[in-house]
Amino acid sequence: MPSLLRVDADRLRGDLEELAAIGATPAGGVDRPALGEAHLEARRWFLERAAEALLETCIDSAGNHSAILPSPRSGGRTLLLGSHLDTVPNGGRFDGALGVAAALEALRRVSEEGLELPVDLEAIDFTDEEGTLVGLLGSEAMAGTLRPDAFASPRGGADAVAAALARSGMTRAGILAARREPASLAGYLELHVEQGPRLERDGIAIGIVSEIVGSRSFELSFVGRAAHAGTTPVADRADAGLGAASFVVATRELVVAEFPGRVATIGRLSLSPGAFNVVPGRADLALEFRSPSAEELDRMEDALLEAARATAAVHRLELEIRASGRWEPTPLDAEAQSALERSAAALGLSHVRLSSGAGHDAQALAHVTRSAMVFVPSAGGVSHDPAELIAWGDCANGADVLLNGALELARSV
Amino acid sequence: MPSLLRVDADRLRGDLEELAAIGATPAGGVDRPALGEAHLEARRWFLERAAEALLETCIDSAGNHSAILPSPRSGGRTLLLGSHLDTVPNGGRFDGALGVAAALEALRRVSEEGLELPVDLEAIDFTDEEGTLVGLLGSEAMAGTLRPDAFASPRGGADAVAAALARSGMTRAGILAARREPASLAGYLELHVEQGPRLERDGIAIGIVSEIVGSRSFELSFVGRAAHAGTTPVADRADAGLGAASFVVATRELVVAEFPGRVATIGRLSLSPGAFNVVPGRADLALEFRSPSAEELDRMEDALLEAARATAAVHRLELEIRASGRWEPTPLDAEAQSALERSAAALGLSHVRLSSGAGHDAQALAHVTRSAMVFVPSAGGVSHDPAELIAWGDCANGADVLLNGALELARSV
Repeated sequence: MPSLLRVDADRLRGDLEELAAIGATPAGGVDRPALGEAHLEARRWFLERAAEALLETCIDSAGNHSAILPSPRSGGRTLLLGSHLDTVPNGGRFDGALGVAAALEALRRVSEEGLELPVDLEAIDFTDEEGTLVGLLGSEAMAGTLRPDAFASPRGGADAVAAALARSGMTRAGILAARREPASLAGYLELHVEQGPRLERDGIAIGIVSEIVGSRSFELSFVGRAAHAGTTPVADRADAGLGAASFVVATRELVVAEFPGRVATIGRLSLSPGAFNVVPGRADLALEFRSPSAEELDRMEDALLEAARATAAVHRLELEIRASGRWEPTPLDAEAQSALERSAAALGLSHVRLSSGAGHDAQALAHVTRSAMVFVPSAGGVSHDPAELIAWGDCANGADVLLNGALELARSV
Repeated sequence: MPSLLRVDADRLRGDLEELAAIGATPAGGVDRPALGEAHLEARRWFLERAAEALLETCIDSAGNHSAILPSPRSGGRTLLLGSHLDTVPNGGRFDGALGVAAALEALRRVSEEGLELPVDLEAIDFTDEEGTLVGLLGSEAMAGTLRPDAFASPRGGADAVAAALARSGMTRAGILAARREPASLAGYLELHVEQGPRLERDGIAIGIVSEIVGSRSFELSFVGRAAHAGTTPVADRADAGLGAASFVVATRELVVAEFPGRVATIGRLSLSPGAFNVVPGRADLALEFRSPSAEELDRMEDALLEAARATAAVHRLELEIRASGRWEPTPLDAEAQSALERSAAALGLSHVRLSSGAGHDAQALAHVTRSAMVFVPSAGGVSHDPAELIAWGDCANGADVLLNGALELARSV
């Protein structure tokens, strides 16, 4: 094995601190929704830092921002390292930013060492990972998996998307034309905060992501009969709120008992007519559940919707079910995972394979090139929150694993 | 016992049909929110019908509309019969209207019979019973129990109240000055639809209301920790939505097991941040419960709030509790109840004493004069809904009981 490189931990920390100041919130977090002013400022900062390091810079038609370390013997093949500089509204300092800063740092270290690799190295900041507008917009555009109907009813609303594109000089046609030829890609590696508690709790320095879980979501409505809260005996009620509440409880029990380790969430619930003195005639809720296995997702769907039907029947309610989202589980590349594991082992860092419960740009790239991810511990598992935190040492550990894993992957082309 | 009178059932039905046309909705209901155009039209209709019957008419400074059959030997004492012509938004045809139409019909029959009573008879339409603006506004003003702070944060909103008062030429000062001297009142009788299923289910023609239940309401907030729906293991969640749902289920079970025959309702519930892919960090709900006994209300409050605390503890949530409403149980007058019972018995109508689970103008008047209520069966117990229905025969039965009960009460002065 070639000798190990290490990132400049102080420089990486300095970059992360500078990034954290762009869109900083009073609570210590960051507010950089995709293509908003703070996000555009962070992207300019990224290209300036790249230029200072004498790297080439590029912005593609999907708005993806890149710093490039070309190699005279790459034959046009590129190994991508990256993540995203946008955040959820009122988010944390590390989610996305760590991966972009570490990618930039990796390119600087390779450049400083004068290593000549058989690929170009590209540090990339993907557009709108978090879905303030569409979600995985830049990475899916590059993978060629973005569908034109992604703009039909985008998560952020059509008006917000139109305004954001105009503000940043982008067009839908340009985004849809941003696909890269898969043969030009040598792989994709992404360093990211775990967003969960497992690594911290188990005292493990590095997570190697084996797959990104799939998820399905449904809108369920329990429909009963609104009634006077004072004059309608309990036994005569068709209380839609009670049905929905029973389903929330049943969902938790069912997942714990039959799908240990999996998650199901009811994050939205509303009652109609919604007056304190009227028995609810209608309850609308959003159900979402995740698993790394498509077969298990089928079984979860069957069990949860059956529980909803049974709950509705017990409480004499009608039930309406509408599927609202479906993302397939995405296995990551075995060779790339092994390269990252060897990197962690060579650095003397404890490591474990785990699933990612959250979505990432890597799941878009995985369709077209060898893709893998490195996770570092998240304090308390807090995510999408100003309190999100990674120890500086863990940031450097993760960047070291990314750097040496990238070198191995680059040399294996 | 003097000979029985009977109302003119056809004339009563005609009046109710004319009233049902004012603010009629396509679904067959009535939309006459207090002091809206349709309500004001119904009030004009009432005064016109009274004038046709050669009754005196009066509007007091709280907007209460009256038809009066004066007696030369009343000594200024008045027996009130009435209810309200306003409805909830998109309400039914009978709630309130039956009581006003039956009161008018009673005065006409006494007038036609040439009976000279020792009291004035007054058929009254109270302002804003339903609480589109404040609730029991006219009857509490007349009883002198309306507090000036009723206008501070009224149910309908301060702007809507101001607009309604301006539209109908009323002022706050006038409303607060509408108190009648209790010594001038000989009693208050009100005919109303049951708004519950008991009379119909048991095949009983007449309900004599023994008391109007008290109610208490609370705003409860379960506070946990918002978290990523994909990356936060079930065991690590502090899911405020799950806590709230468990409390909804526990409330139902507790009331059925420990307070049979009583009601508790959670009519409003919302989750924050309220995204399908975020574990709820906060759940806000409105709890309301009712009982005819103040002592039982105390026990219900203790048991339900203790259940909320226990649920919060189980799910590792904080709990915030704010009292939001408190209405004491109101017993109705024993003598007036007996007069109504004798009236029903003399008419050969089956009858039963029962509690009212809903609030009524009678609960305001009960503080200052002998007050009682007659209920007639409500088809299916449907209330505050276009489908609200009373059989015409039941309308006439109730009006007959009101009329003869009023005669007995008038003669007992």
